[in-house]
Amino acid sequence: MSIGDPLKLMAPEQLRLAARQGKFNKPTSGMAPGFVQCNLVIVPQHYAGDFADFCRRNPKPCPLLAVSPRPGDFSLPELGLDIDVRTDIPRYRRWEDGVLVDEPSHLLDHWTDDHVAFALGCSFSFEEALLAGGLEIRNISEGVNVPMFRTNQPCASAGPFAGNLVVSMRPMKPKDAIRAIQICTRFPAVHGAPVHFGDPTQIGIGDLQQPDFGDAVSIRNNEVPLFWACGVTPQVALENAKIPLAFTHAPGYMLVSDKLNTGLAVL
Amino acid sequence: MSIGDPLKLMAPEQLRLAARQGKFNKPTSGMAPGFVQCNLVIVPQHYAGDFADFCRRNPKPCPLLAVSPRPGDFSLPELGLDIDVRTDIPRYRRWEDGVLVDEPSHLLDHWTDDHVAFALGCSFSFEEALLAGGLEIRNISEGVNVPMFRTNQPCASAGPFAGNLVVSMRPMKPKDAIRAIQICTRFPAVHGAPVHFGDPTQIGIGDLQQPDFGDAVSIRNNEVPLFWACGVTPQVALENAKIPLAFTHAPGYMLVSDKLNTGLAVL
Repeated sequence: MSIGDPLKLMAPEQLRLAARQGKFNKPTSGMAPGFVQCNLVIVPQHYAGDFADFCRRNPKPCPLLAVSPRPGDFSLPELGLDIDVRTDIPRYRRWEDGVLVDEPSHLLDHWTDDHVAFALGCSFSFEEALLAGGLEIRNISEGVNVPMFRTNQPCASAGPFAGNLVVSMRPMKPKDAIRAIQICTRFPAVHGAPVHFGDPTQIGIGDLQQPDFGDAVSIRNNEVPLFWACGVTPQVALENAKIPLAFTHAPGYMLVSDKLNTGLAVL
Repeated sequence: MSIGDPLKLMAPEQLRLAARQGKFNKPTSGMAPGFVQCNLVIVPQHYAGDFADFCRRNPKPCPLLAVSPRPGDFSLPELGLDIDVRTDIPRYRRWEDGVLVDEPSHLLDHWTDDHVAFALGCSFSFEEALLAGGLEIRNISEGVNVPMFRTNQPCASAGPFAGNLVVSMRPMKPKDAIRAIQICTRFPAVHGAPVHFGDPTQIGIGDLQQPDFGDAVSIRNNEVPLFWACGVTPQVALENAKIPLAFTHAPGYMLVSDKLNTGLAVL
């Protein structure tokens, strides 16, 4: 293939194998187009019930797609028959007492029979649907990470897991924003419709050019900012919970599944 | 019945009969809840093809629900077996060369074998769905007609029928506006999702407190205006067309059909 990056054309299974063998260590954005990519959270069994509750009570930021079949089982058969959550993501994050301590390339040295993995839906899926609908996505056009912001909107808490909603922002013309709301409504499993648009101060955001995560994007005169519930929310809840040990994917380095994005559409 | 207006509880058929007999001559807003009410346009056969084209090319302002089975036939069996379009609306408008000349209570003296009637969807249907969804509709809360505005957005023309889109405006909080977009998307036969929100100058509207039709409503600090394609649009196209003769319903005096609003939902 002479056009583009041949890695992009790898099937999800090949991509996971390459990550497992240490041959692929880049962000997964744009890889295996058409397939669902997931946020990953791993917690000790003791906290798994509370974390599952946190997801159930906050389905827009934390749409739960799959959970380990049992503690210590590193497969996720709902998302792909060969998945090994210890190795199939190119970069992980290790958290101790809510503090990021390391970004390992695999968890073979860390995984125990006590661990439970949670896979959550990710904005890549609805961004694909928006692009297919002819809409422009500014962070993609400008080749940067989507800007994300902490809001003043509290999540429903569960056990030690609590915190405010984090949102991602994409600016659009009002007409396109209406179309984006329609398209994303079809995808509740990947954050669904936006939660807010327009005045950022209404949800506690000060300056759209100073995102808390990701990169700033340009906003044109005739555009409004649209805000979606964001998968960084559970990572913030994890920091707040200060549990002794947890693992997540590193931002942008997602678990690539065998599920089709189009299969997530509720209609 | 001691609660409310007993007229409101009349079945569509009874309401039409009362209008036919000259016993009911009020606006139909709030009458026969649950049933589809329609805008009516009557033109001579010579212009019927162009008017049908105008509707087809502009389905958001002109969602066509029914047409006379043949020129001169004053029934509309698609909307109710007993409908007589000459008598069943409490107040009509007569137009000559695009000028409003009269508001008769029936068309028995005017109807000829040359006339063709068009019934178009009306915002009452989606307002009912929005209320059922727990949303507030300001014009209803304030007991006034919805404010309507001429825009600078041209309709697709057909023969002599041409003009800019007219929109109705309802202010909402962004969160409610997102829900309203979702709900109205289910009802393409009654104007569907809004066509714009936010800055009114983007569609050529100067002052939201000076509507071109209907009444002004209050807009609160944390609200944005939402704009829907409006059934007054074909009336403006009719004025512009300056055809020798045409009839419409008078604003607010609609044709009440036997179709259920819920039956218009596409999902």
